[in-house]
Amino acid sequence: MSVEIYCFQPLLTNSGRVYLSLLEKGVDFIERELNPVVFEHLQEPYLKVNPKGQVPALVHDGRVLTEGMTINEYIDEAFEGPPLRPADPGDRWRMRCWCRFVELDLGRAIMMINWNRIIPRVWGTRDPDEIKNIIDKVPDPDRQRSWRSAYLQKTPPEQIEESWRRSQAGVRRIEHALTQSPWLAGQTYSLADIDHFNFFFLMERLIPDVIGSLINAETPATRNWLARMEERPAVKEMRARTKLPG
Amino acid sequence: MSVEIYCFQPLLTNSGRVYLSLLEKGVDFIERELNPVVFEHLQEPYLKVNPKGQVPALVHDGRVLTEGMTINEYIDEAFEGPPLRPADPGDRWRMRCWCRFVELDLGRAIMMINWNRIIPRVWGTRDPDEIKNIIDKVPDPDRQRSWRSAYLQKTPPEQIEESWRRSQAGVRRIEHALTQSPWLAGQTYSLADIDHFNFFFLMERLIPDVIGSLINAETPATRNWLARMEERPAVKEMRARTKLPG
Repeated sequence: MSVEIYCFQPLLTNSGRVYLSLLEKGVDFIERELNPVVFEHLQEPYLKVNPKGQVPALVHDGRVLTEGMTINEYIDEAFEGPPLRPADPGDRWRMRCWCRFVELDLGRAIMMINWNRIIPRVWGTRDPDEIKNIIDKVPDPDRQRSWRSAYLQKTPPEQIEESWRRSQAGVRRIEHALTQSPWLAGQTYSLADIDHFNFFFLMERLIPDVIGSLINAETPATRNWLARMEERPAVKEMRARTKLPG
Repeated sequence: MSVEIYCFQPLLTNSGRVYLSLLEKGVDFIERELNPVVFEHLQEPYLKVNPKGQVPALVHDGRVLTEGMTINEYIDEAFEGPPLRPADPGDRWRMRCWCRFVELDLGRAIMMINWNRIIPRVWGTRDPDEIKNIIDKVPDPDRQRSWRSAYLQKTPPEQIEESWRRSQAGVRRIEHALTQSPWLAGQTYSLADIDHFNFFFLMERLIPDVIGSLINAETPATRNWLARMEERPAVKEMRARTKLPG
């Protein structure tokens, strides 16, 4: 059996959630690091592995798996080790709704805030033709459009305000859920916790003031959940393998 | 055991895929029809069932389930009857990728074309204040923005062109998959076929010329798959229960 993960370092959000699932299951795997700074994920040879140019990809005995959420369900189904999904169909439904939520709703809202802060600052000093070229190569058209708007600082202010509203509503929803049960999907630790944890871990590093304004003394259940996550052996192992800059 | 489905008639896309899954599993259920013409799904009492105002919702022994894709996995896990997901984890991963694809990629592209044709025509003759009110009430902000752009005929032409490119690429991808195996996820009929079939069924009625330009003599495997779908007893049953206008 061979298992490889193509991922970014530091291990954040999408790479992190698949990486953490492998660690939680106790799977032996090889790490193939791609460098986002030189856009290694948008060039050959990686485009031969995943033509969409998105990270991560899991290669299991020659089969290439992409799309974070579906990879994680695959990991839970294909490998031995402790289950990462609740046994009850209702809780499992809840887990999948949370995974969708952090990807498609809360995650998009916070990423929109993030991109509009970071992209003009990081790319603003570089050659505009080079940046135009890079943006033109982003395979996902929605993301391409968002990045272009952020780079040109043309995102309508009402879209950023709406992202703030959605972020605040999303965090309130998480806080409420975690006052009802120890984990997002209920009594069982699951892929929903893995997805949210990795997302917040990235965001705390990129935009600590935004996350600090969302998760704070007024969200004690969420803070307690984050602390419990940090105590998990697999999370500690992921931390040890995460190459944070500087 | 009580099972109710809140759905639109005619049974299309989201309502249809959950309805068809229930029929395929042989579940006894009660149909609760909502009328989209008077926006019954955006008003009390339905907002008490699903605050997002989206259809369908499944109510199983008092538990309310929303979000089409996750409802369908729930149906397969919670009820007896023939499996609607492949047993092999790799094929199951493929099934989930297809379900995501028709919802988030191909589906959005074709819906964008559809909305920009239909909304100005259908709503254009009605009182603008009434329409403004309706659009303001759409709970999903992305959809709200798309509908507003379509209604005001302000969708940038390049976004519509891009939707055409994505639609064409998506249909080519489906055709290729169906030349490799009888069903989208491989050898097993699955939720992926259910989702795609219901989506095309709606679109053929709304925008037959668009679908005709995408699925035709050049996509024989897709046409053969559609014909095989129509032969399934559950599909025939759904047809019989679908109230098509006039």
